[in-house]
Amino acid sequence: MAKESWLPDYSPASDFSLANIPFGIISTPDNQTPRPAIAIGDFALDLKTWLPMINKETVSDVFPGVDISQLTHALSQSTLNAFAALGRPVHRIVRKGIQDLLPKDTPFPQLLQDNEEGRTKALKRLSEVTMHLPMEIGDYTDFYAGYHHAYAVGVIFRGPENALQSNYMHLPVGYHGRASSIVVDGTPIRRPVGQILLDPKAEPKQPVVGPTRKLDIELELGCFISKPNEMGEAVDVKQAQEHIFGYVLLNDWSARDIQAWEYVPLGPFNGKNFGTTISAWIVLADALEPFRVKSEIENKTELQGYLKEEGEKGAFDIKLEVDLTTADGSETTIGRTSSKYLMWSFPQMIAHHTLGGCPMRTGDLLGSGTISGPGGVKERGSLLEMTENGKNEVLLAGMNARTFLKDGDSVTLRGFCDDGSGVRVGFGRCAGKIYSAVQR
Amino acid sequence: MAKESWLPDYSPASDFSLANIPFGIISTPDNQTPRPAIAIGDFALDLKTWLPMINKETVSDVFPGVDISQLTHALSQSTLNAFAALGRPVHRIVRKGIQDLLPKDTPFPQLLQDNEEGRTKALKRLSEVTMHLPMEIGDYTDFYAGYHHAYAVGVIFRGPENALQSNYMHLPVGYHGRASSIVVDGTPIRRPVGQILLDPKAEPKQPVVGPTRKLDIELELGCFISKPNEMGEAVDVKQAQEHIFGYVLLNDWSARDIQAWEYVPLGPFNGKNFGTTISAWIVLADALEPFRVKSEIENKTELQGYLKEEGEKGAFDIKLEVDLTTADGSETTIGRTSSKYLMWSFPQMIAHHTLGGCPMRTGDLLGSGTISGPGGVKERGSLLEMTENGKNEVLLAGMNARTFLKDGDSVTLRGFCDDGSGVRVGFGRCAGKIYSAVQR
Ligand SMILES: [Ca+2]
Ligand SMILES: [Ca+2]
Ligand SMILES: [Mg+2]
Ligand SMILES: [Mg+2]
Ligand code: NI
Repeated sequence: MAKESWLPDYSPASDFSLANIPFGIISTPDNQTPRPAIAIGDFALDLKTWLPMINKETVSDVFPGVDISQLTHALSQSTLNAFAALGRPVHRIVRKGIQDLLPKDTPFPQLLQDNEEGRTKALKRLSEVTMHLPMEIGDYTDFYAGYHHAYAVGVIFRGPENALQSNYMHLPVGYHGRASSIVVDGTPIRRPVGQILLDPKAEPKQPVVGPTRKLDIELELGCFISKPNEMGEAVDVKQAQEHIFGYVLLNDWSARDIQAWEYVPLGPFNGKNFGTTISAWIVLADALEPFRVKSEIENKTELQGYLKEEGEKGAFDIKLEVDLTTADGSETTIGRTSSKYLMWSFPQMIAHHTLGGCPMRTGDLLGSGTISGPGGVKERGSLLEMTENGKNEVLLAGMNARTFLKDGDSVTLRGFCDDGSGVRVGFGRCAGKIYSAVQR
Repeated sequence: MAKESWLPDYSPASDFSLANIPFGIISTPDNQTPRPAIAIGDFALDLKTWLPMINKETVSDVFPGVDISQLTHALSQSTLNAFAALGRPVHRIVRKGIQDLLPKDTPFPQLLQDNEEGRTKALKRLSEVTMHLPMEIGDYTDFYAGYHHAYAVGVIFRGPENALQSNYMHLPVGYHGRASSIVVDGTPIRRPVGQILLDPKAEPKQPVVGPTRKLDIELELGCFISKPNEMGEAVDVKQAQEHIFGYVLLNDWSARDIQAWEYVPLGPFNGKNFGTTISAWIVLADALEPFRVKSEIENKTELQGYLKEEGEKGAFDIKLEVDLTTADGSETTIGRTSSKYLMWSFPQMIAHHTLGGCPMRTGDLLGSGTISGPGGVKERGSLLEMTENGKNEVLLAGMNARTFLKDGDSVTLRGFCDDGSGVRVGFGRCAGKIYSAVQR
């Protein structure tokens, strides 16, 4: 991988290095139409604008074997669904082709580096672009594959003897989430109002209605589906990689008090459906391949055949962090962990999700479940765990402390992979600021 | 309401009487493009074909105050979302206008009755049309508002002391369902494969993978949303009627053994997401207004303000039945009940769903939860209840019997309202036939 680019201010230590080339949907002050772009260093390359400026034969040299009319059409839409639907072999060629345009020694200088009109029209500073939801999301499913999170939450609510339910090691537990409230990085989140049982032990149980007192985050990895499956047909775990478009960071905002009262017997509902934030740039599946590792969680259970993967490296070592910024602007990193603590891989989640024939569509989103490490409160992906459900405080910079989130707080998730030699693939930011509940 | 129509073979006892005028999406052998239509008697009136054949001024007489260009555009789409988005006041005028075209004494005979070209091109026998999914469904939520079902299922799994969870009388319990596997009446349903715990008492628990042995149905009413709400803004229960487009029958196919093993702690997943069938014709909200009744279920709990409705008639008396047809063609009605046994109204479900700011979009679908009556096994909306989870058999015509569904069985839900004087508003059919599981 070339490490230097002709782009101004380029650093290989950028989240959006030459090794990455994530895809997103941008608009700009001069063109409000949302459209596909890639991020590189401090810039977005507007693909909808750039691609038609180049003659088709030259483009074919950069993206060999790709139907250029089809690609141009896909990259002129307001979401990435059409591009995702072209399939992983096409994503691979297109990512590689764009990687070839950007190094100092690019074999195609005339396409962008020396093409002043192209650079002016299609290269935009990230600070000047507005990001949009990258995909039209048909269905969103949230899994529960973070072992240490599932265990810690189980201990809080049921004690260490019964922390994990008996199905946990046999199948990737998941539930259907709400697609309509998925928002992109930076979108404000309003504190939800809901039914809350202030005293869970009092009888008869008498809920009140008010703003959640236990507004929490969940640090997750999101996975977008590219290739769909027909209703009635399962995806083989060994083929499931070909159904993956790419990955984002995901914050599954959660109102713990609303959730606790409502969730029996059918699962979380209003405690979750008020908002889920994803990072704006989708890191393509191929960009993460160099960072495969074996999951840190050993599952000694003999797996059913449909969950057995080839190879051992089902996880990625994405370094993750949770930053909390208070209304006065002071920022504290409250959690650090890695996605290597996910016990189930996304191919296993896809194989399980489709086992009974459930159709997945291009643009469907899977959440990994909250990711926590084994090492105590500083490696946790939720305040629920960090504070033992509000019993302890998390100390912040500036003499602040939190059990759960206050109005005016912002939470920012960050994540990146690093191969130790300076090659970095990062996710950018997944942030949201809490606004006061509606007065009722 | 006029009781006679100039249409051939018309009977006011049809599900699709002049009092109904349900909307659906059809295609025909000569025109495969899915397009909006209404059903009347034995016919579909193809609105996309018919509307542009009439001059705009005349159409304005039939649909006074409606923007005819906007209406024509909405009724030329391949789903009813654009029409639904026009809002309930428009639906009211359009339904009334179509009702005026069809009686023997129509004031507009030149538009259809005496318009031979219009009749030939736009009126199609229902036997000759193919029905499609009427809406593009962004999110699907399934509630649990059928009191007798919730109670009976609670007794089966937890005994009569703990049959209802403590939240049940305080809020409409619901969970997010899978939108991608919602199919229209007549679509085959493949028996799902899943993880099943054959002996729930054995330790350690050891699941197997195989076709469900407990394939069940759930008789429900579905409700489509017309008017959306913004994220962060709740819908007032007193305004929620204006957010409703119309109703369908809904069969929430369920695999009880898959569900039992997977659903703790996050709710049903593969036990439900392999298929949900809805009837093809959407009965508009206004068509059901004459059939409002007080719910048969008295909730003595003091409700939170956001759930308090004006008026007492939150339910409808839709007579419902479940028919089971075996592979040899013999049909048995195995359950009869009414939607008056729903304890929560759809406005209450909408108010609760949006309480924390969850946005609902045009085309979102709400399921009522399984509807059962108080009167024993013949009034039940699921085989789980009819057979006490497989302990007893349901006897069928032709010396057949069932605990759960066999391959080759078809289940048909039917529903209609009747005012006692011969005015009938019905839903048609919501049917699906079970195909064998994929061999793995
Ligand atoms: Ca989660
Ligand atoms: Ca149901
Ligand atoms: Mg969420
Ligand atoms: Mg279903
Ligand atoms: Ni249009």
